Amino acid sequence: MKEQIEEANGKLGILIPGLGAVATTMIAGVEAVKKGLAQPVGSLTQTGNIRLGKRTENRYPKIKDFVPLASLNDIVFGGWDVYSDNVYEAAVNAKVLELGLLQPIQSELEKIKPMKAVFDKDYVRNLDGKHVKEAATKYDLALAVMEDIENFKKENDCSRLVMVWCGSTEKYIEEADVHQNIYSFEDGLRNNDPLISPSMIYAYAAIKKGVPFANGAPNLSCDITALVDLAKELGVPIGGKDFKTGQTLMKTILAPGLHARSLGIRGWFSTNILGNRDGLVLDDPDNFKTKEVSKLGVLEDILQPELSPELYGDLYHKIRINYYPPHGDNKESWDNIDIFGWLGYPMQIKINFLCRDSILAAPIVLDLALFFDLAKRANMSGIQEWLSFYFKSPQTAPGLRPEHDIFKQLIKLQNTLRHIMGEDLITHLGLDYYQDLVESL
Amino acid sequence: MKEQIEEANGKLGILIPGLGAVATTMIAGVEAVKKGLAQPVGSLTQTGNIRLGKRTENRYPKIKDFVPLASLNDIVFGGWDVYSDNVYEAAVNAKVLELGLLQPIQSELEKIKPMKAVFDKDYVRNLDGKHVKEAATKYDLALAVMEDIENFKKENDCSRLVMVWCGSTEKYIEEADVHQNIYSFEDGLRNNDPLISPSMIYAYAAIKKGVPFANGAPNLSCDITALVDLAKELGVPIGGKDFKTGQTLMKTILAPGLHARSLGIRGWFSTNILGNRDGLVLDDPDNFKTKEVSKLGVLEDILQPELSPELYGDLYHKIRINYYPPHGDNKESWDNIDIFGWLGYPMQIKINFLCRDSILAAPIVLDLALFFDLAKRANMSGIQEWLSFYFKSPQTAPGLRPEHDIFKQLIKLQNTLRHIMGEDLITHLGLDYYQDLVESL
Amino acid sequence: MKEQIEEANGKLGILIPGLGAVATTMIAGVEAVKKGLAQPVGSLTQTGNIRLGKRTENRYPKIKDFVPLASLNDIVFGGWDVYSDNVYEAAVNAKVLELGLLQPIQSELEKIKPMKAVFDKDYVRNLDGKHVKEAATKYDLALAVMEDIENFKKENDCSRLVMVWCGSTEKYIEEADVHQNIYSFEDGLRNNDPLISPSMIYAYAAIKKGVPFANGAPNLSCDITALVDLAKELGVPIGGKDFKTGQTLMKTILAPGLHARSLGIRGWFSTNILGNRDGLVLDDPDNFKTKEVSKLGVLEDILQPELSPELYGDLYHKIRINYYPPHGDNKESWDNIDIFGWLGYPMQIKINFLCRDSILAAPIVLDLALFFDLAKRANMSGIQEWLSFYFKSPQTAPGLRPEHDIFKQLIKLQNTLRHIMGEDLITHLGLDYYQDLVESL
Amino acid sequence: MKEQIEEANGKLGILIPGLGAVATTMIAGVEAVKKGLAQPVGSLTQTGNIRLGKRTENRYPKIKDFVPLASLNDIVFGGWDVYSDNVYEAAVNAKVLELGLLQPIQSELEKIKPMKAVFDKDYVRNLDGKHVKEAATKYDLALAVMEDIENFKKENDCSRLVMVWCGSTEKYIEEADVHQNIYSFEDGLRNNDPLISPSMIYAYAAIKKGVPFANGAPNLSCDITALVDLAKELGVPIGGKDFKTGQTLMKTILAPGLHARSLGIRGWFSTNILGNRDGLVLDDPDNFKTKEVSKLGVLEDILQPELSPELYGDLYHKIRINYYPPHGDNKESWDNIDIFGWLGYPMQIKINFLCRDSILAAPIVLDLALFFDLAKRANMSGIQEWLSFYFKSPQTAPGLRPEHDIFKQLIKLQNTLRHIMGEDLITHLGLDYYQDLVESL
Ligand SMILES: NC(=O)c1ccc[n+]([C@@H]2O[C@H](COP(=O)([O-])OP(=O)(O)OC[C@H]3O[C@@H](n4cnc5c(N)ncnc54)[C@H](O)[C@@H]3O)[C@@H](O)[C@H]2O)c1
Ligand SMILES: NC(=O)c1ccc[n+]([C@@H]2O[C@H](COP(=O)([O-])OP(=O)(O)OC[C@H]3O[C@@H](n4cnc5c(N)ncnc54)[C@H](O)[C@@H]3O)[C@@H](O)[C@H]2O)c1
Ligand SMILES: NC(=O)c1ccc[n+]([C@@H]2O[C@H](COP(=O)([O-])OP(=O)(O)OC[C@H]3O[C@@H](n4cnc5c(N)ncnc54)[C@H](O)[C@@H]3O)[C@@H](O)[C@H]2O)c1
Ligand SMILES: NC(=O)c1ccc[n+]([C@@H]2O[C@H](COP(=O)([O-])OP(=O)(O)OC[C@H]3O[C@@H](n4cnc5c(N)ncnc54)[C@H](O)[C@@H]3O)[C@@H](O)[C@H]2O)c1
Ligand code: NA
Ligand code: NA
Repeated sequence: MKEQIEEANGKLGILIPGLGAVATTMIAGVEAVKKGLAQPVGSLTQTGNIRLGKRTENRYPKIKDFVPLASLNDIVFGGWDVYSDNVYEAAVNAKVLELGLLQPIQSELEKIKPMKAVFDKDYVRNLDGKHVKEAATKYDLALAVMEDIENFKKENDCSRLVMVWCGSTEKYIEEADVHQNIYSFEDGLRNNDPLISPSMIYAYAAIKKGVPFANGAPNLSCDITALVDLAKELGVPIGGKDFKTGQTLMKTILAPGLHARSLGIRGWFSTNILGNRDGLVLDDPDNFKTKEVSKLGVLEDILQPELSPELYGDLYHKIRINYYPPHGDNKESWDNIDIFGWLGYPMQIKINFLCRDSILAAPIVLDLALFFDLAKRANMSGIQEWLSFYFKSPQTAPGLRPEHDIFKQLIKLQNTLRHIMGEDLITHLGLDYYQDLVESL
Repeated sequence: MKEQIEEANGKLGILIPGLGAVATTMIAGVEAVKKGLAQPVGSLTQTGNIRLGKRTENRYPKIKDFVPLASLNDIVFGGWDVYSDNVYEAAVNAKVLELGLLQPIQSELEKIKPMKAVFDKDYVRNLDGKHVKEAATKYDLALAVMEDIENFKKENDCSRLVMVWCGSTEKYIEEADVHQNIYSFEDGLRNNDPLISPSMIYAYAAIKKGVPFANGAPNLSCDITALVDLAKELGVPIGGKDFKTGQTLMKTILAPGLHARSLGIRGWFSTNILGNRDGLVLDDPDNFKTKEVSKLGVLEDILQPELSPELYGDLYHKIRINYYPPHGDNKESWDNIDIFGWLGYPMQIKINFLCRDSILAAPIVLDLALFFDLAKRANMSGIQEWLSFYFKSPQTAPGLRPEHDIFKQLIKLQNTLRHIMGEDLITHLGLDYYQDLVESL
Repeated sequence: MKEQIEEANGKLGILIPGLGAVATTMIAGVEAVKKGLAQPVGSLTQTGNIRLGKRTENRYPKIKDFVPLASLNDIVFGGWDVYSDNVYEAAVNAKVLELGLLQPIQSELEKIKPMKAVFDKDYVRNLDGKHVKEAATKYDLALAVMEDIENFKKENDCSRLVMVWCGSTEKYIEEADVHQNIYSFEDGLRNNDPLISPSMIYAYAAIKKGVPFANGAPNLSCDITALVDLAKELGVPIGGKDFKTGQTLMKTILAPGLHARSLGIRGWFSTNILGNRDGLVLDDPDNFKTKEVSKLGVLEDILQPELSPELYGDLYHKIRINYYPPHGDNKESWDNIDIFGWLGYPMQIKINFLCRDSILAAPIVLDLALFFDLAKRANMSGIQEWLSFYFKSPQTAPGLRPEHDIFKQLIKLQNTLRHIMGEDLITHLGLDYYQDLVESL
Repeated sequence: MKEQIEEANGKLGILIPGLGAVATTMIAGVEAVKKGLAQPVGSLTQTGNIRLGKRTENRYPKIKDFVPLASLNDIVFGGWDVYSDNVYEAAVNAKVLELGLLQPIQSELEKIKPMKAVFDKDYVRNLDGKHVKEAATKYDLALAVMEDIENFKKENDCSRLVMVWCGSTEKYIEEADVHQNIYSFEDGLRNNDPLISPSMIYAYAAIKKGVPFANGAPNLSCDITALVDLAKELGVPIGGKDFKTGQTLMKTILAPGLHARSLGIRGWFSTNILGNRDGLVLDDPDNFKTKEVSKLGVLEDILQPELSPELYGDLYHKIRINYYPPHGDNKESWDNIDIFGWLGYPMQIKINFLCRDSILAAPIVLDLALFFDLAKRANMSGIQEWLSFYFKSPQTAPGLRPEHDIFKQLIKLQNTLRHIMGEDLITHLGLDYYQDLVESL
C-alpha cells in the first residue's frame, strides 16, 4: 500500500471558491509561516505528532514526516469571489489578522486576484457582489469554471490541484430528484434548475476535472447522490460538510466525555454572537436553517438516545446564532448544559468560548487540502469519511450514521494514516505492559 | 479466557473505610435503585452500553449484560469511620441527598454501623473523631482490621469481598525507604513508623486477606512498592488514586480535545469552591498538597509538551481549592483557559461547572467495586491500569507514564472487556465500509 | 401632610387579574409569612430600612414602622384567571414553590378561586383557557368586572381595594385614536374596538370604582391617555409597566455604575432562557415584541447617548428570550457587555444570573399593593412615578423621560416617603461632618 | 463660596511616587489626548456631565465646563521610582498600551525621568530596585523629598502641585503609637522607627510643603492621626485609600443594587487572576493582607447586616488574588454570589470581568489630581470624603463609617460640586412634575 502512494512532486494548487475571512486567513498564514513570521498552530499536518508502535517504543513522529504530504513551499493559491478585492484587500477588510502581520506579505497576497464567481443571489440574499460570471445556462457556468481550472493549472505550472469551498453558506434546500443521478443533474444544469446551487456547480466542475473537492460550508454542494457517484466513478476524493470550529467543536469534545461517564443530559442551550460577514449572511433565516441543521445533528449521534432513553431521551437541544457587529470575527459562544447524575440529581455546566472563528477554521482548510491531495495520490476515491474529524456534519457512505465524537474521529484519522503507511493500528489495550496479567489471560 | 472467569455467585461484600459523603451517597443510592426509587445514573456498569463487532452489526449490549458482574441484589455493605454515626445519620449530615429520598430506605441504612477506625490525627488534622481502634503498634491495628474483615464475611455470609477507600485525604508524604519492600514495611508496622498512614494499614490488611483494594483518595495508600509487590504475589487486584470527578474530569475531557486539534495552551487557571467536610480537610495546606499533586499531573501527560514545545512548553497551570461553606457539597469550579491558534492568535475558554461532588463520585465507587471483583474472578492481579478511567492520578506499572486522556482510558477499559470476553478489539478504522477504497488499498 | 394620611384601618383586598406563577407565589408567600413559616425577603415594605436625619443620628427604622402601611394580617386576596384552578392548584402547577412549603397553607390557598376572566385569544395566542366571561360588548365586560369588584368587597368585608395586573403579556399594540380620551375609549368599549385589550378593561373598571391599579406586564393597559386622565379626575393612583426583575434589574443596576465612571459601552448582548408559561406566551413574536420594547428602552435613558456620543453613541443593544423547558421558572440570563475605558481600550463583562423569575417578582406585587394603597390614603392621584423603582418601563407624566437608574429610583421612593412623613430629604452632601471645611465654605 | 475659589492659572505639577503601570498609562494617556490621538474615557473630569436644576431645565454641562479645573495643557508630570527607567521605557515594560500608541509620544515620555525613591525592601519584599535615596534617618529622607518637590516646582515653573501615590502596595501594618501625633511621628522619623513606611514619608513631605496628597494604594500612608491632623492644621487636602477598580468597583455597584431590593446574600466568593508587577508584589502574603483588608470592608458597610441580620447576618465573604503571568495587566475577576429572595429561595449570580487594571486606574489618578487641586483652591482642607467615589477604602473623619455605595458616593461628589458652585442640591424627589399631586400634599 505504502509503495503505491504517488510522491508529492511538483506544485500543488489550492483553489478556493470564496476568498473571504477564512480563506484569506489561511492563505496569509501559509505565506507568513513560509517566511518564518508565525507558527501554523492548529494544523495537524504541520504541528501534530502520531504515536507508532507500543507506548514503550516512544515513537511519535510529526505527521508531516510520517506521510508524504505536499510541502508548504510547493503550494500556490487561486480562487473565485463575488467581490474583486485581491487577497490582501480582502484580508484587511476581514479584520481577522493585524496589519503588522499582513504588511510583510502584502506583495504575495496582492498577486492573488479572485476569478469571477458563479453566483446566485437567490442562495445568498444578504450579499451583493458584482464580480460574477454571466452565461445562458448553469451548464455553461460549469464549463467556465473548468476552463478557469485548466488555465490556473497551466499558468501556475501545477502538477496537482485540490478545491476547498470557503464561500458563504447557501440557503437551505434538501436533496431532490434533480440531484439523484448524473443524468438528471446535467439536465438540470442545462435547464437552469433552481435547485442547483453555485456550490454544486463548482463541485461538479472540480470532480469532472479530477480535482478533489472539500466543502467547508453546511450547504449540500457535493453531498448529493449525483456527485457522490460521479466522484467514485472518476476516482476523485470528496468530502464535507461545514468546518468544525467553535461551539460545535466544543460540543463534540464535551458530549463524548459526558456520555463516557453515563451522565444524563436534560437540556443543551447554545447561543452564539458574531459580527463578521458570515454572521450577516446567517442573519437571513433561510441561510441560518442550513447552519442550524448542520449543528443540531451532533448530539444525537454521540449520545445515541435510543440505547439510553433514560439518560438522553428527553434532551432539549436549542441553538441560536445572533448577528452582533461589536464582536466582528471574534465569535463568542455561551452554552448552558443541564446534566444529571446519580439518582437523577441535576448539575449544570456553562461554557463561554471567546474564540476567533477564522483562526480556528484556517488550519482546517490547509489540512483538508493536504489530506485530500494525499488521498488522491493514494488512490482513495469518493467520500473520505476518515476526515470527518474536520467537519460539523460529515458525509458518510449511504446508510452509515456519521460519527461526530471527535476522539473516535481522530483515532479513525490516525489509524487510517497508520494503515496506509503499513503501521500497526492502535487499540489502547496495553495489557502486555502487565506481563503477569497477560500470562494469566 | 472467557471460560476461565469465575461466576459471580453468592454475596459480594463492599467494605469501605470512610463512611462520609461519597460512601453514604453510594450506599443509599444502591438501596434506592434496588427499590426502584431512582436510577443509577453515572454508573457505567449499570447503564453503559458497549459496541461489539462492526458498526453495521448494530450490537450495543449493556455492559452488565455482557460481562459477568455481581448483581446489586447480591451486595452487602460494611465500613469503618472515626465517627460512630450509622449510614443513615451520616447521610443526613452529609446533606447530599434529600430527606425525601433517604426516608424510604432509612431502616436499611441504619443497619450499617461503622466499625472502629484505624486513625492518626497527624494525617488529618481537621478531624477529631473518637470512634477509633487502640493498639500498641500499627501491626496490631492491621491485625484488627483483618479480624474485622473475617468477621464481616462470616456474619454476612459473603462469598467475595472488595474494599474501596473513601476516607479523608491524608497529608502529603512521598514514598520512602519504609515503603520499598514488604520486609521494611512490616518492620515499620511493628515500629510504628510515622510514614505509615492509616490508609496503608487498611490496604495491607485487605491484600493479605486476598481482598481487592481500590483507593479513592489522592494519598499513597496502596501506591507503594511494598504493597504493589505483595498484591502481585498474592494475586490480588489493586488500584488508585483519587476518584476522577468535577474539574479534573472536565480537564481530561477538554484537554484531549484541544490537543487533538493542535491548539496551543498558554495558561490554565482552575479554582474550586466547596463547603463540605472534604473541603474542610483540604483547607489544611498539608492535605491540600496531596490533592494538588494529584490534580496537577493531568495536563502534562495529555499534552506531552516535550513533543510540542511550541504549543505546550510555556503552559502555566494553577489550581486553587477554596473552602466556602455556603455551597456545601455543591462543589463549583471555574476554569479560565488561555489557548492560541493559527499564527499564535489568543482565544479564551471559561468553564463554570456547578457540580455535586458526591453525586459524581458515588457511581465510581460502585463501578470500581464491581470491576475489581470481576478482575479477581478473572485472575487479573496487581495494578489494574485498565480502570484508569476512574482515577485522577492512575497507578501504573513502574516506568509507564499514566494515561489521563479519558477517551483513551475508555477505549482501554472497553477493549479490555472485549478482550476478556473474546470479542474483537475496536480500532475505528472502518475502511471496510468504503468497499472501493478498501480494494484499492 | 403626615396628618392628612388616612389610617390603614380595616381589611385591604388585593385583586389580581392573572393568578399564575407570580401571583400564586406572592399569595402563598404572604400566607406562609403570616404563619411564621418563611421570611418576606425581597420586599422593601416588609424588610427594608430607611435612614432618617443625619448619618450620626443613627436612625434607620423599618419602612413598615415609619409609614402607615396595611398589615399582612389585614390582607385578603381575590382574582381572575382564564383557568379555573384554585390558587393551591395553580401554585402546584407553576412549580415555583416546593410542596413542603405549600402543604401547610393548602386550605388557605384552596379557598381562593378565580373569577371568570375577561379574555381575548387574539391578544394571547398561546393560551387556551375556558374560564372566561361572555358578553355582547367590551363595555358589558367592564361592567361585569365592576360587579365582581363590588361583590368581592362586600363578601370580604374590605375597607379598601387595590388591583395589580399579573396576567400574561398581551400582544404588541401602540396607543391609537381610541385611547386618546375617555369618550373615544368608552365608545370603543361599546363598539368592541379590537384595539382595546382585556388588561385595559380591568384597568378601566378599577379606576371607575376608585381602586388603585398597577400593571405588572409590559402591555399598555392603564398607560393610555384616556385612563391616565380618568385616574387623575377620579383621584385614583395608577402605574406600570412590567415588574423589574432578572436581567433588566441587573441592567439598571450595572449601567448606572458604568455610566458613573464614564466608561464607554460598545455593545450589550442579553439572552434569556426560561421554560414557564410566561416563556411559552413570549414564544409568540407578537407578545415578545411587547416585552422587547419594554426591555430595550432601559439603557438609552440611563446612558443619555446624546450627552456623551463618544461613549454611548454606537452602542449595539440586543435582547433575546428563548423558551427552554428544562429550566421551568428558573429563568437564567447571560449578558455580554463590551465596554471600553481610558484611550478606548476594550474590556468585557459577562453576567450569568441564575434567577427564579417569580421569586423576584412576588415581593414586588406585595410592595406595589401596599404602596398604592398608601398613595390612595395620602390623596396622591394619577401616575405614581415615585414607584418607578418596581417597573421595567415606568409610566411618567407626558413629556417626562422615564428614570431607569435604580438608585435614582430608590432615592426618589425614599425621599417621597420622607417627604410625606415630614422628614428632611437626604442629599448625601455631608459636608457638615467636616467642620473646618464647612466653616471655610 | 463660588467667588472664593482661586482660579486655575499657571501650571499644575502632578508628582507621582511609583512610575509603574498605572502612572505611566495615565501620563501617556494625557499626552495622547493632548495630541488628539485618543479619548480620556473613564475620566469624570474630562468626559462626565452633571445635571443642574430641574429635569425639565435640561442643563447637563460637562463637569470641566462647570467647575474651574486645571486644563490638560497646563499639566506637567514628575515622579519617583526605585527603577531608573524613564516613563517611555516603563510604559513599554508595563505592556499596557500598544507600541503604536506610545511611539507618537515617545519624546514627551522619555523626558520624564524618575527621581530617586525613598524605599524600604522590608515593605515590598518582591521588588529589588537600586534607584533609591540613601540617608542616615527617615527624617533626612523626608527632607530630601521636600527638596525634590521644591526643585521640581521651580524647574517646571509650576504655580501649584499635587501628589498621588502610585507606588507598590506596602506590607500590612496597623496604626500604632508612633502614628498618633505629629511629635511621636517626627521622633519616629528621626529614630528610623520601623513602623514608618516610605509612603508615609512622601505623604509627610507633601503635606509639609502644602501639596495635596492622595493615596492610590491600600497601605496606610496619610491615613494616620499624625498626618490627618497635620493636614488640617496646614490646610492641605488629603485622601485615600486604594483606587477603586475592577472587582471592587463591580462589587460597590452590584451590592447596593441587591440591597436596594432587600435581596439576601449568603456568600460572595471573589477570585482574581493577574500577571503584572502589582500581582507579583501581592503574591507576598504580607502585602496581600493589606489589599485584602482594603477589599473586605466594602460589603459590610453597604449591606449593614446589623440592621438586617436575616438578610446579611450570615454572609460569607472570601477574596482571592492569584498571580497568573499569562494575563499580564489584563486582570480578570470571577465572582460567585449566592443570594436568596422571597421565602428564602436561593439564586446565583456569576460575574466574569475581563478588565484591564491600569486602564481602569489611570483616569482615576487624573481625576484625583484635578479634584485635589480644586479642593486646595477652594480652601477645603483635611480628608476629602466627597472623593470616596474613587477609593476602595475611603478615609473618613474619625468615628464616621465610610460610604462604599458608589451611587451615594457619586451623589456626594456631584452635590459637593453643586454646593461649591452655588447650585441647588438634587434630591430626585421630583413631585413638582406631578402638579395635582403636589397641590394635594
Ligand atoms: N469558523 C469558521 O469561520 C467557519 C466554520 C464553519 C464553516 N464556515 C463556513 O465557511 C464559509 C466561509 O466563512 P467566512 O467566515 O470566510 O465567510 P466570509 O463571508 O468572510 O467569506 C465568504 C466569501 O465567499 C464569497 N462568496 C459567496 N458566494 C460565493 C460564490 N458563489 N462564489 C464565490 N465566492 C462566493 C463571499 O463574497 C465572501 O467573500 C462560510 O460558509 C461559513 O459558514 C466557517
Ligand atoms: N467527588 C468527590 O467527592 C471526590 C473525588 C475524588 C476524591 N474524593 C475523595 O474521597 C474521599 C471521601 O470524600 P467525602 O466527600 O466522602 O469526604 P467526607 O469527609 O464526607 O468523608 C470521609 C470520611 O472518612 C472518615 N475518615 C477519615 N479518616 C478515616 C480513617 N482513617 N478511617 C476511617 N474513616 C476515616 C471521615 O470521618 C469521614 O466520615 C476524600 O478523600 C476525597 O478527597 C472525593
Ligand atoms: N419575573 C417575572 O416573573 C415577571 C417580571 C416582569 C413581568 N412579568 C409579567 O407578569 C405576568 C405574569 O407572569 P407569570 O410568570 O405569573 O405568568 P403565568 O403565565 O404563570 O401567569 C399569567 C396568568 O395570567 C392568566 N391570564 C392571561 N390572560 C388573562 C386575562 N385576560 N385575565 C385573567 N387572567 C389571565 C393566565 O391564564 C395565567 O394563569 C406576565 O405578563 C409576565 O410577563 C413577570
Ligand atoms: N487597577 C489598578 O491598577 C489598581 C487599583 C487599585 C490600586 N492600585 C495600586 O496602585 C499601585 C500601582 O499599581 P501598578 O499596577 O502601577 O503597579 P506597578 O508595580 O506597575 O507600579 C508600582 C511602581 O511603584 C514603584 N515603587 C515601589 N515602591 C516605591 C517607592 N517606595 N517609591 C517609589 N516608587 C516605588 C515600583 O518600582 C513600580 O514601578 C499599587 O499599589 C496598586 O496596588 C492599582
Ligand atoms: Na481562587
Ligand atoms: Na440567544
